[in-house]
Amino acid sequence: MKLLILQEKLKQGLNIVERISSKSLTLPILNNILISTEKNFLNLAATDLEIGINWWVLTKIEKEGKITIPSRLFSNFINLLPNKKINLEVKDNSLFIECENYKTQIKGLSAEEFPIIPKITHGDTISIEISSFCKSLNQIADIAVPSTTRPEISGIYFLFQKNLITIAATDSFRLGEKKIFLKSNSPLEKEYSLILPQKTAKELINIFNEKQGELKMHFSPNQVMFEYPMEETPHAQIQVVSRLIEGEYPNYQEIIPKKCTTQLILNKDEFLNQVKTASLFSGKINEVKIKANPEEKNIEIFSQSSEIGEYQSSVSAKTKGEPLEISFNHRFLLDGLLSIKTPEIIFELNQESGPGVLKAMGDDTYIYVVMPIKAS
Amino acid sequence: MKLLILQEKLKQGLNIVERISSKSLTLPILNNILISTEKNFLNLAATDLEIGINWWVLTKIEKEGKITIPSRLFSNFINLLPNKKINLEVKDNSLFIECENYKTQIKGLSAEEFPIIPKITHGDTISIEISSFCKSLNQIADIAVPSTTRPEISGIYFLFQKNLITIAATDSFRLGEKKIFLKSNSPLEKEYSLILPQKTAKELINIFNEKQGELKMHFSPNQVMFEYPMEETPHAQIQVVSRLIEGEYPNYQEIIPKKCTTQLILNKDEFLNQVKTASLFSGKINEVKIKANPEEKNIEIFSQSSEIGEYQSSVSAKTKGEPLEISFNHRFLLDGLLSIKTPEIIFELNQESGPGVLKAMGDDTYIYVVMPIKAS
Repeated sequence: MKLLILQEKLKQGLNIVERISSKSLTLPILNNILISTEKNFLNLAATDLEIGINWWVLTKIEKEGKITIPSRLFSNFINLLPNKKINLEVKDNSLFIECENYKTQIKGLSAEEFPIIPKITHGDTISIEISSFCKSLNQIADIAVPSTTRPEISGIYFLFQKNLITIAATDSFRLGEKKIFLKSNSPLEKEYSLILPQKTAKELINIFNEKQGELKMHFSPNQVMFEYPMEETPHAQIQVVSRLIEGEYPNYQEIIPKKCTTQLILNKDEFLNQVKTASLFSGKINEVKIKANPEEKNIEIFSQSSEIGEYQSSVSAKTKGEPLEISFNHRFLLDGLLSIKTPEIIFELNQESGPGVLKAMGDDTYIYVVMPIKAS
Repeated sequence: MKLLILQEKLKQGLNIVERISSKSLTLPILNNILISTEKNFLNLAATDLEIGINWWVLTKIEKEGKITIPSRLFSNFINLLPNKKINLEVKDNSLFIECENYKTQIKGLSAEEFPIIPKITHGDTISIEISSFCKSLNQIADIAVPSTTRPEISGIYFLFQKNLITIAATDSFRLGEKKIFLKSNSPLEKEYSLILPQKTAKELINIFNEKQGELKMHFSPNQVMFEYPMEETPHAQIQVVSRLIEGEYPNYQEIIPKKCTTQLILNKDEFLNQVKTASLFSGKINEVKIKANPEEKNIEIFSQSSEIGEYQSSVSAKTKGEPLEISFNHRFLLDGLLSIKTPEIIFELNQESGPGVLKAMGDDTYIYVVMPIKAS
């Protein structure tokens, strides 16, 4: 292999694939990045056996070939080079790198040992606008938790129905659900549902967050592939393939309350700040109590711990329905508030033991359901 | 105790004293902050028994008194309040805090149990310009390392001679020395030398880094006190008292080479970047080799590791004296380069086993001496 590439371009690719390489003691090659040529393209690839990432760039290939080298070292090294032409050449199982007055060689492992990253070449495909996809996933991805007894809820649930995508996640204490309406003219013929590993969801956000345009999603029974097109050429620039989590996602719809007994409309930042402040006094069970009385123009927030002291504050609110005292874990309440970006929120409550629902004011596409701490 | 204070002011004071409070299991009161009144001033104090900090602010005292409360909690809480008037009141061993629609009480411990923070009321005093003091200390403070066998070198050495202060630190692999010339008209009558704990040096930088004006330094045999005056009043705003490290500081002057066999003049950023890049290939002993030949207009940098690979680069340099190959620990070289702020540096070398000296071009007040890795 022998080729020329600009430092800036190589750096971009490395920053995308490098994060996936894992420190694996049993399979050291997973710590490496696969560097290979494909016609006029340089290809970088990395995998942790759950997720595989391929990145391509059009460049000047003088001689085809391939090698794998330690990804962290390669990425750190390239990041420190000046933005000039870099000469990459494979000789004697090493990668020789020359750039201006820098000259190095990095020992590699044979490309033959690198695991094959699967591609999905047929089956249904949809197109999603990237920024809305990343924003939506961002609202949901952190809610899932690793669970060995219930592996389904350690992933993010996706349901595809014609031109509607529903994304949901829960850790059994709270649940988030987001709907994305596709503008695309080619709705899916049949319904698909899948459970995406949380790690894949977070990597997708990382990789595509700043990108513009459309992301293509390819379906297969056990895997899903996300593809980002390359400008000016028909070739993809980035492909992310992920295994899916097997199993049936819980029927979470039945947890979402269809009505409420008390409704609060609150300024999000004020409420958020008071919950945060109350959390300092909430003791070991993280309990923050909310007292709402529709006759008042505000709600009260309480917390206390026998060791620390007592907290009380109030925030102005539009209140409808029955008076109520209800307690929440402040962490779950804060996560929900932080996932909403509008200045005003709607907080719907269902007596002291029913789930609460947070919604963004004027946005029906997102809900956050949070279970209360039941009075003992 | 009962008083009124603006949130912004209280926050400023807490951010200064709070850091000193330590999580002490044997003496839980050290985790607390002492809040007390002194005539028209509110006083906050914290200590870890090595360093003590006092902070005062002029405010409206309705009733004198004092209490100690957990410092982290108090500081976190005050930071989250709006910038409005805060009412502080001590009742039943608790501090009651009211601010707008917030109302809390924090359980305290008796102020009588709080250790007394000593004050130095007589003895010699000098005035130092704060920004030059903090910048100088910043160049030196990180070099010291905790040492149980040689406690002296775990501190920062200060020598006061008339209107010259010399600050030095070493970890026996490298040494930094900085000279500060005082503009003050009241030079000290006699010489003082002392060893300041590294933690105190770092706290001084933290507290005073952004401040303007003069810092007063008071001497006593076992302690030193730094005092920052309060605007408009004769009272101090901040007092930091620190114990000193006992013992005799090593006569480090004899390590500093008086001449050199090879002199290099280098662009700091270029050299720094290449040492950083070389460090990626330097293996377990952190060795980076420099090859200088006065006939060339550059120096070469090498590193290698049997596991990783090989590195080589060159950086343009003005070279005088003998040709030379010398190896350094890249961490020590990088620390030295990072402590110099000028665009050009002078690197003086003394054959392959003598110490190297880094200097800022055009600044004789600072030197950084670094021991080479001797060829085995």
